[in-house]
Amino acid sequence: MPGHIVSSYDNDLEDLRRSISEMGGVAEKMMAEATDALVRRDTALAEAVILADKRLDTLQREIEERSVLLIAKRQPMAIDLRETISAIRVSGDLERIGDLAKNVAKRVVAISDQAPAQKIVQGVEHMSDLVQEQLKDVLDAFSSRDVKAAHDVWERDGAIDALYNSLFRELLTYMMEDPRNISFCTHLLFCAKNVERIGDHTTNIAETIHYLATGEALAGERPKNDASNYATVTPAA
Amino acid sequence: MPGHIVSSYDNDLEDLRRSISEMGGVAEKMMAEATDALVRRDTALAEAVILADKRLDTLQREIEERSVLLIAKRQPMAIDLRETISAIRVSGDLERIGDLAKNVAKRVVAISDQAPAQKIVQGVEHMSDLVQEQLKDVLDAFSSRDVKAAHDVWERDGAIDALYNSLFRELLTYMMEDPRNISFCTHLLFCAKNVERIGDHTTNIAETIHYLATGEALAGERPKNDASNYATVTPAA
Repeated sequence: MPGHIVSSYDNDLEDLRRSISEMGGVAEKMMAEATDALVRRDTALAEAVILADKRLDTLQREIEERSVLLIAKRQPMAIDLRETISAIRVSGDLERIGDLAKNVAKRVVAISDQAPAQKIVQGVEHMSDLVQEQLKDVLDAFSSRDVKAAHDVWERDGAIDALYNSLFRELLTYMMEDPRNISFCTHLLFCAKNVERIGDHTTNIAETIHYLATGEALAGERPKNDASNYATVTPAA
Repeated sequence: MPGHIVSSYDNDLEDLRRSISEMGGVAEKMMAEATDALVRRDTALAEAVILADKRLDTLQREIEERSVLLIAKRQPMAIDLRETISAIRVSGDLERIGDLAKNVAKRVVAISDQAPAQKIVQGVEHMSDLVQEQLKDVLDAFSSRDVKAAHDVWERDGAIDALYNSLFRELLTYMMEDPRNISFCTHLLFCAKNVERIGDHTTNIAETIHYLATGEALAGERPKNDASNYATVTPAA
């Protein structure tokens, strides 16, 4: 009964999509809560984020295994093969996003006893808000297979890198102004870097959506604007 | 002719192994050269590392595509399926190792005009030497399917995390001693973090070798000793 086989295959794919959607929800929540925990210096919330990461790891492993079994059992071709490959890739990116959010949460615990100027934290919060929007948009684009929306996310990653770059310089300046800021600002630097890397993973997902729809890799250079690898700041004389 | 099919499948697997071996060689070379470039402040060598990363990206994409096609065409089961899944995983880790080495190389360019105490750089160099040994050992273990050697690598990751943790505190102390060290030491902090993450990817590869040989995930908690997420340093009064 070929009809039965096709329908069961569709069910398998539908299950994969549901699991990815669940992963996306967990990753979004982790990122929002890690940022809240940072802004409010809420260690209990940070601990909750750290725990939530386990669910994401489990889901990712399951999706990977189910996708591979699906490929082995059904020998899908063309679009159906791309569906399963995309599931593996997107779940990998979401798992990494969870790791990065967890790392921000761990740093909230580290700096919980310090009371830095709220203005410094707001830069990271603002950047995180933008990346959360990117994550939401790319997950919507994945659900609706909306290639244009995915391209929009891809294009906007350059702005986030530019923001990270200016935040990097700002944090270095704070450290130079007062050595008591160094420990705190170092953790904020890593938080900002983690958020920037979450942005990179949303860009990866956007590229996967393009591949899923067209069968081709997204052409052209990524709109990278992260010059912070090259940035230095000199203390005032 | 089933004999012919099996033999052609073996050839495909052999090709995959060869490509992974090539990736491993490129990743090792990038890491060694990025570290040399950092120690000698050699920007030309750093630029060469940055360029080399493209080859790794290409190889990874090829291995992923060929593995998936192999699964779809041959419907391998058990050990043969694990071979192809392992190829996808290991090539993913090696691609990330290349990215991290490339990031170290970019920071060499950033700090090329600064002349910090060589002693500070040596801490990162020492850590990188240990991780390069881990990488070499895990690649050898993968080639020879040596589960015991893979376990040894896995166990040793805790020592690298502990080293990173002490380096993190040391770099923060340097920054507090003299604001002119801040810019440089921040880049070194990120370099050290990248090297520590390369260590994590060698641990991933060790876990894949275990899975390949046994079909099971490696049980037990990873020997993580990285407490730097939680570390703070207070300036001397």
